[in-house]
Amino acid sequence: MPTLPTYDDVCAAATRLRGFAHRTPVLTSRTIDLELGAQLFFKCENLQRMGAFKFRGAFNALSRFDERQRKAGVVTFSSGNHAQAIALSASLLGIPATILMPADAPAAKMAATRGYGGKVVTYDRYTEDREAIGREWSERQGLTLIPPYDHADVISGQGTAARELIEEAGELDALFTPLGGGGLLSGSALSARALSPRCEIYGVEPEAGNDGQQSFRTGDIVHIDTPRTIADGAQTQHLGALTFGIIRREVKDVLTATDDQLVECMRFFAERMKLVVEPTGCLGFAAARVMQDSLKGRRVGVILSGGNVDIVRLCALLAS
Amino acid sequence: MPTLPTYDDVCAAATRLRGFAHRTPVLTSRTIDLELGAQLFFKCENLQRMGAFKFRGAFNALSRFDERQRKAGVVTFSSGNHAQAIALSASLLGIPATILMPADAPAAKMAATRGYGGKVVTYDRYTEDREAIGREWSERQGLTLIPPYDHADVISGQGTAARELIEEAGELDALFTPLGGGGLLSGSALSARALSPRCEIYGVEPEAGNDGQQSFRTGDIVHIDTPRTIADGAQTQHLGALTFGIIRREVKDVLTATDDQLVECMRFFAERMKLVVEPTGCLGFAAARVMQDSLKGRRVGVILSGGNVDIVRLCALLAS
Repeated sequence: MPTLPTYDDVCAAATRLRGFAHRTPVLTSRTIDLELGAQLFFKCENLQRMGAFKFRGAFNALSRFDERQRKAGVVTFSSGNHAQAIALSASLLGIPATILMPADAPAAKMAATRGYGGKVVTYDRYTEDREAIGREWSERQGLTLIPPYDHADVISGQGTAARELIEEAGELDALFTPLGGGGLLSGSALSARALSPRCEIYGVEPEAGNDGQQSFRTGDIVHIDTPRTIADGAQTQHLGALTFGIIRREVKDVLTATDDQLVECMRFFAERMKLVVEPTGCLGFAAARVMQDSLKGRRVGVILSGGNVDIVRLCALLAS
Repeated sequence: MPTLPTYDDVCAAATRLRGFAHRTPVLTSRTIDLELGAQLFFKCENLQRMGAFKFRGAFNALSRFDERQRKAGVVTFSSGNHAQAIALSASLLGIPATILMPADAPAAKMAATRGYGGKVVTYDRYTEDREAIGREWSERQGLTLIPPYDHADVISGQGTAARELIEEAGELDALFTPLGGGGLLSGSALSARALSPRCEIYGVEPEAGNDGQQSFRTGDIVHIDTPRTIADGAQTQHLGALTFGIIRREVKDVLTATDDQLVECMRFFAERMKLVVEPTGCLGFAAARVMQDSLKGRRVGVILSGGNVDIVRLCALLAS
């Protein structure tokens, strides 16, 4: 079992991120508090740089590179927010970045990653294994591989969002975060356990891809096929060894939300809170809403993990 | 000439609002800073209670009511954000509120105003004069009339947004605010002049209704017909005596923006900043974008005045 990161690592990450990551606002809504009979605190990582919490982990990992690593560069595989997070962080730190993306990834995502200065290399997602290609680039060309979630520095960086949330809102009774590969959930758990020891921590997955829930309940990491869901940031097929190590120790339960519930939450955020939140970013609130009877009178944190949804797509989802 | 409110009044309003109004976030975007070659600070009043800065002025005015006024109640005329601001503030303070709205006002707006506890009374906007009806209710029933902008306590309350912006961002070289009846612009001017004496203050109107620009340039309050524009919060027909008194003294210029420019700004805010901003709320940024050559290297504040746009309408505007 590799060594798990700790809350001290989150604090060190917070120092590295100062002046680079936004300290995103924590928003509240008395309307929703009245509706749920609880006090909700929304940590708005949709307002983070490049539109998602992923910037925190990527920047933290890259800022720990030594001189040789910086010169040689970083490689990662991702078709989503982690790709842009690595590209942006690398450009800020003057590190060359190579991003492996499936050849059929949306052109807009490739363009955004290139726009942040990343070199995009495509592969065939049906015949090639992205992790194997990543390892190969890493070994042959001396690039350092920073995977999307199962990495101590990535987890520690992601934990800074919950740290800021609890610093600002005070102790919480419950905390809800989206769950894909577990970077955000495990990092958040480190902060919540340290700053708000009695806080119950919940991870929330798309119902169509509940590998995390199965893993949590059986005690072994369960692998699934890529799930069909609008929550494209949580289409991971399995948790990581590090993230699961923390999750099984600190998390109260893993819950799920349907795509319809996510659309209703997107509508709520746009209409009532004036925020664009991507489907994955709605997972935490969707579960909190369902659980509202057991949250009466409690102080509840919800992490809105990102806002990277195309506006045409947002409108299509809300019209459906 | 009636006595104009001062920055001291803004400070007193800030004290009254503490714990009731949100201290809304000031957001920045390095992408837009690079694009414009300036440093922009967006004051997010779309994230204010009831979705607009109007809560500040309404709450400040109502919290100055004496016992007799509180018992008798408040009356106002508005089909927009001021109606909801008065209804919500009155309900928080336990004051009965009567809101005069045109009989053909959108059902959603009437419902929202009733939802905040206001009593809605309709009139025919083609045959009746809302200001005369307001005065009549005020005189006959002893209600206190709080108009949407031309009132010292309303102006002072609105000024607290720019005060918070400059407290957080530091001194500014320029400040852009939407301009309808002038409550936000004149209140902002009081704060900017006091906290950032060299700041150039700009009001921005819809091009189709440039009565403020005409008034500013001729020195007399110009009246116009209700303009056709998507900026429904700035369809006022004339400035007020108080607001114009401050504007002509403190403001550098009054600029205009077209509906097409506002739609482009709405798209920018939704896509790049993950914010829902109503058309009126985009006026300041639309003008700053046009003026970008003269803003190079400068520190620029922009007030996003509100976010109350129906999502179906937002999507229709962005698709057009």
